[in-house]
Amino acid sequence: MISPTNPQQTRVDLLITATWLIPMDSKDRILTNHGIVISGSRIVDVGPVSELSTLYSAANIIDLEGHVLLPGLINAHGHAAMSLLRGYADDLPLQSWLQDRIWPAEDRWVSEQFVSDGTELAIAEMLLGGTTCFSDMYFFPEQVASAANDTGMRVCLNTPILDFSTVWASEANEYIEKGTRLHDAYRDHERISFAFGPHAPYTVSDAPLQKIAMYAEEMDLGIHMHVHENAKEIEESMHSHGMRPLTRLKQLDLVGPRLQCVHMTQLTDDEIDLVAGHNASVVHCPSSNMKLGSGMCRVADMLKAGICIALGTDGAASNNNLDMFTEMRMAAMLAKTSSGDASALLAWDVLCMATCNGARLLGQENELGTLEAGKFADIIAVNLNTPSTQPVYDPVSALVYSVSSSQVTHVWVHGQHLVRERQLIRMNQSSLLKKAVSWQQRISGNGAK
Amino acid sequence: MISPTNPQQTRVDLLITATWLIPMDSKDRILTNHGIVISGSRIVDVGPVSELSTLYSAANIIDLEGHVLLPGLINAHGHAAMSLLRGYADDLPLQSWLQDRIWPAEDRWVSEQFVSDGTELAIAEMLLGGTTCFSDMYFFPEQVASAANDTGMRVCLNTPILDFSTVWASEANEYIEKGTRLHDAYRDHERISFAFGPHAPYTVSDAPLQKIAMYAEEMDLGIHMHVHENAKEIEESMHSHGMRPLTRLKQLDLVGPRLQCVHMTQLTDDEIDLVAGHNASVVHCPSSNMKLGSGMCRVADMLKAGICIALGTDGAASNNNLDMFTEMRMAAMLAKTSSGDASALLAWDVLCMATCNGARLLGQENELGTLEAGKFADIIAVNLNTPSTQPVYDPVSALVYSVSSSQVTHVWVHGQHLVRERQLIRMNQSSLLKKAVSWQQRISGNGAK
Repeated sequence: MISPTNPQQTRVDLLITATWLIPMDSKDRILTNHGIVISGSRIVDVGPVSELSTLYSAANIIDLEGHVLLPGLINAHGHAAMSLLRGYADDLPLQSWLQDRIWPAEDRWVSEQFVSDGTELAIAEMLLGGTTCFSDMYFFPEQVASAANDTGMRVCLNTPILDFSTVWASEANEYIEKGTRLHDAYRDHERISFAFGPHAPYTVSDAPLQKIAMYAEEMDLGIHMHVHENAKEIEESMHSHGMRPLTRLKQLDLVGPRLQCVHMTQLTDDEIDLVAGHNASVVHCPSSNMKLGSGMCRVADMLKAGICIALGTDGAASNNNLDMFTEMRMAAMLAKTSSGDASALLAWDVLCMATCNGARLLGQENELGTLEAGKFADIIAVNLNTPSTQPVYDPVSALVYSVSSSQVTHVWVHGQHLVRERQLIRMNQSSLLKKAVSWQQRISGNGAK
Repeated sequence: MISPTNPQQTRVDLLITATWLIPMDSKDRILTNHGIVISGSRIVDVGPVSELSTLYSAANIIDLEGHVLLPGLINAHGHAAMSLLRGYADDLPLQSWLQDRIWPAEDRWVSEQFVSDGTELAIAEMLLGGTTCFSDMYFFPEQVASAANDTGMRVCLNTPILDFSTVWASEANEYIEKGTRLHDAYRDHERISFAFGPHAPYTVSDAPLQKIAMYAEEMDLGIHMHVHENAKEIEESMHSHGMRPLTRLKQLDLVGPRLQCVHMTQLTDDEIDLVAGHNASVVHCPSSNMKLGSGMCRVADMLKAGICIALGTDGAASNNNLDMFTEMRMAAMLAKTSSGDASALLAWDVLCMATCNGARLLGQENELGTLEAGKFADIIAVNLNTPSTQPVYDPVSALVYSVSSSQVTHVWVHGQHLVRERQLIRMNQSSLLKKAVSWQQRISGNGAK
């Protein structure tokens, strides 16, 4: 197809062609017989195969019949290392899940090694499921940064901030300082970005929240926070502060374009207007909200109000996996259920939530979220030619309603090929799994076995 | 491990051992280091590996480290051939989905060949996803019987009955007669069973319903019917009959142990009592109810009332897949969401819905639904040693909340090995997929391509 001897051709690293290509750059745009050209970490071109083959001489060509190419999925909220607590506490509501099971287990077990091993396990799961960028909030974020750096994954670290002492820091100022120091250390890293991660309105008091608002402005960073996760949070805020959490955040000057509100299951019409009017964004975590019985996020109403909504899995301790395909399906189905309207959230809008909206929410819409020349080459290939997905009348419907993450065959992050034919290229899967079993045995008290 | 020369040992066909075995014969019973012994179509024994290896000499031994063995999943409601219309009509509510899209497409395209090809595609998907028995309601059920017979799959055929003319029959009596004749033809088939399948209260009038009630009693068959699928069905019944559909079915003597009510999203407390009091059973189809915006089935309340609830995918035109693992996860999460209670439906109860409850609903609890000596050998093996499922604190939680159907590695139906290492043994997958693509091209009007 491509003649390497033609002197008119530009030499590039890689040409990928597939049956379908969905660049996510324009509504409902689905291309057939197109390809994507990559050099280094960037996309060089997207176009018809016939055109690309006259323009470029590629060192490597991958042709994926029956596959669709799309931007890598962006998991906009999670706690990666908590994968080691997957299934440790099921069928409990948020407060008792946290206070009676998760926080005591974290106090006992979370360490640098726990975060390193748990994050690597999570990265392996996410890469194999087509996620090329994750937004994380957890202790020892330096370990998460290190895991992302080593594995080739892309991450946004929401460095945690709490009023109280944990394994990582003792009080809000120390959290803020440690986070800021880490940000400095990775300032020039192209795959590792930062935001402030105040845990929730009920775990961070007014003074540190105001400090975070000021620092975020000075350092040009986002603020990533659990907000209005369930009804009890609202009740407690009414009791402690005499106002709902969002009202308090507004008074503290946090509600603005930097704010990423995670969960948001309890919203009045006025609060939707507030968020929309101040250009704050929202991360929807349907599985976690459903599993913890937290409530339903008014996604359709918020999209109508023009709010940028991204999608997140939350941690594997409340999901219990990190599968963005499951999350897309859940988001669509939950929106239809909560509204009683089958047309409430269209497949296209869900796919936007998992790709370009995630990039916008992270403030990286110029680098990520679509397949366009000049952007980072974060790309996934999904095999639609399976008995569970054929026939394909519409690849977008297939991706949201039929496909399982196990159909992701190839993954590139920053131009690096990290998954090939469903195999992790740069990670040792069997060693990861052994570490996970070993943690489970220790945590279950079977360590001596 | 097993010495074939020991004359004390009983010769058997197959011994399967795995890290975990969940027989589903007793609540929360999870066995480790156990195995299952098979001869012909039946389970001979279940016990500790050490015991089995002294008692039996197996012609074949399969050892599945890191896997869990459990009864094959029973998909208690669907329209298999509609897999050829997967993704053909999305984001529409039930009535316009049916009347504007599905019924016209069926009128135009459904034929013996359509049903044969569509059912084979569905069987391939279901087997690869761990379903060993499906309950089907569709036109040309003789084609479905033939596909099940050829592929080794187990099926319960709910022969369709409608007032009006379709591709298969012209009026209710003809449907009943054709169904009865088919039942006669397969009377002694161990893998193919029957029930009457009156489509819904709004498509079958009183006289045929009474006839069905009488025939079902005489022939000892079940009655499988869409009941209270959404609010509009209730409204229309109030308008046409002056009563709710369940009240009408009660008056017509259909509400009893033979009745399998599919969907049941609209239920009063009195109706739950009615169903419980008459030992009727329910098939819950969470994905379909959610996708069509039909409403939420009160699963937790009905389980409390002692009603037998099984699980179904519905057809791939309203789901859009036939994945019982997705359905289990959806059932658990939807119950927690609709009740606002994270403990509303436990993982164990969901696993029962997909196995032993399905067998009870089909009236085949003596042959299917658990792994016990004497029952048919319908068995699946699921690999839990993956980055998306480890660590495993509880294999039941893993199966419901973490596992994807792609982790099913081996499937046996009636003692026959039908899936080995994720490969279909008796079906030609590439030929099936070609047929699906060809139907899609014809139905989309691209046949000339």
